[in-house]
Amino acid sequence: MTDTYRRILLAARPQGLVDGSTLTIDDSAEVPEPADGQALVAVRHLSIDPTIRTWMDDAPGYLPPIAIGDGVRSGGLGEVVASRTDALSVGDTVFGMLGWQEYALVDAADGSLAVVPPGIEPAVVLGVLGVTGMTAYFGIRDIGRVEEGDTVVVSGAAGATGSVAGQLARIAGAASVVGIAGSADKCAWLVDELGFDHAINYRDEDVGARLRATCPRGIDVYFDNVGGGILDAALANLARSARVVLCGAISQYNEDRPVGPKNYLQLIVTRSRMEGFLILDYLDRFPEAQLEMAGWVMEGRIHHREHMVQGLDRAGEALNLLFSGGNTGKVVVVV
Amino acid sequence: MTDTYRRILLAARPQGLVDGSTLTIDDSAEVPEPADGQALVAVRHLSIDPTIRTWMDDAPGYLPPIAIGDGVRSGGLGEVVASRTDALSVGDTVFGMLGWQEYALVDAADGSLAVVPPGIEPAVVLGVLGVTGMTAYFGIRDIGRVEEGDTVVVSGAAGATGSVAGQLARIAGAASVVGIAGSADKCAWLVDELGFDHAINYRDEDVGARLRATCPRGIDVYFDNVGGGILDAALANLARSARVVLCGAISQYNEDRPVGPKNYLQLIVTRSRMEGFLILDYLDRFPEAQLEMAGWVMEGRIHHREHMVQGLDRAGEALNLLFSGGNTGKVVVVV
Repeated sequence: MTDTYRRILLAARPQGLVDGSTLTIDDSAEVPEPADGQALVAVRHLSIDPTIRTWMDDAPGYLPPIAIGDGVRSGGLGEVVASRTDALSVGDTVFGMLGWQEYALVDAADGSLAVVPPGIEPAVVLGVLGVTGMTAYFGIRDIGRVEEGDTVVVSGAAGATGSVAGQLARIAGAASVVGIAGSADKCAWLVDELGFDHAINYRDEDVGARLRATCPRGIDVYFDNVGGGILDAALANLARSARVVLCGAISQYNEDRPVGPKNYLQLIVTRSRMEGFLILDYLDRFPEAQLEMAGWVMEGRIHHREHMVQGLDRAGEALNLLFSGGNTGKVVVVV
Repeated sequence: MTDTYRRILLAARPQGLVDGSTLTIDDSAEVPEPADGQALVAVRHLSIDPTIRTWMDDAPGYLPPIAIGDGVRSGGLGEVVASRTDALSVGDTVFGMLGWQEYALVDAADGSLAVVPPGIEPAVVLGVLGVTGMTAYFGIRDIGRVEEGDTVVVSGAAGATGSVAGQLARIAGAASVVGIAGSADKCAWLVDELGFDHAINYRDEDVGARLRATCPRGIDVYFDNVGGGILDAALANLARSARVVLCGAISQYNEDRPVGPKNYLQLIVTRSRMEGFLILDYLDRFPEAQLEMAGWVMEGRIHHREHMVQGLDRAGEALNLLFSGGNTGKVVVVV
């Protein structure tokens, strides 16, 4: 008799948030055997990222949509439990696109697969040293090009990427770092623990007025995770030659008709640039960046927080937290 | 008895296009006498540019709004008729912000004032060698950074700036140049006379479908003069690492509520950049650029066309042509 395992399949494309009709749990498939060059990984932790929601739509993107009936694509961390490749040994911890499931077959030749050195907490691997931390790193440095004396504003600032982006801006020499988040607790965390100069609670405050007050010389770098009205408020307050880093748009991913930034012509008035990027393009520079980031974490210059959700069956609920603002820091599902 | 002169004042802020209530003609002011360091200029030709419409709104911009009751700000070309500065002699032709009026006092210390060498047609000074041509030059080179083999798309392509931008893209090595314009005649002019590879008539054709067909490898550089739905269609067809040059948005300047580009997240998917610029920042590089451009004009590599409107009193009507699409090439008012 062969063991079966659980995996979460996309049953229907969500309208807005993931709900009861979006996902099904399949527990009938047999745990597969690795072929030559492959290993079997027991999935332990899932990285819950806003981009997963975009893959559920039938829309053009940087990766193909998840097909109806397929497993949900997701970054994850797991342990090699069987191997038919010299590159991976039983007991290795690996990071890769493991998916929302208990077991994954991985290919040693897959360039996005990485063996994780022992002794690092899973939540750190997935968070500050993972794709979210790396997104903050390359967004602030390569796209935002934060310089000494800059005023930097980050939206989604209490999220996994935003919280690291603000701290990296400070390390890069920003004179002032302002975070925009969705609760008084999150704002207090940003200022009291992460060292942001100001935090704006977009649910209670007039973001435009507060940006004018906290950024009297204008915004040099705006790191955008949210889109919508907050992006417009930032565009209205740009300094000259500003850089708008397009990281994501969590306010838009659940909308049928996304809205564009009506203040985009401020890019002309202020001679500014709005630029998008994808962390996939920086995989070859991860090791160097992770080393630098690990140093800052150990020195206490980068603080991080994780929001752990217990149980594979709660992955959909965990994803929704990103859009309802229910999380502070990195959302991780413990399989 | 002292001579009086005519000037056009902003009587009311326009809602949409300039109409009968927007402007008044004042013919009661006396022709002024230059003070020390000044010259009196008889205005001969006005440069009619979309940006003038933006100055009529009470909205923040790169220059203050024109105040109600003030003369309309405008670039123009004129002849020095009296001078109290060694820098300007009677008979000199000068370019500067002369305004919609028959006479202007100019200050020799004004950095934007330039003495024009004799022998160049006024329409060329204001067009291909003027602010519009310079906008195309620095937009294509410094912002768009057109490279050998690029696919370049220009909107407002039969306008003064767009028509030159497309030709400069070809000179910079573009493999394919596509223009978007508003009539079959304009499209024929772009392809038959200016050497564009394709022209899309946005009034009759599906711009998105035609962009997909004419740019099979995607758009590397999109030079945008119009905004609105055409900008969205271009964003949906960007190649990887594309550059969107924000030059203007003539579809938006007459709208109360400008719309933003809803496809802006394609900047993330394609790792692309959208950047604005103002030609004011490049004044010190004009001489070098004008020399190069004059060479291309003489070699027949840059073609240009002007739309001359006779009479200062028709300046408002001339401005409206830019938004109704009634012009091909540079609109100039002969005062």
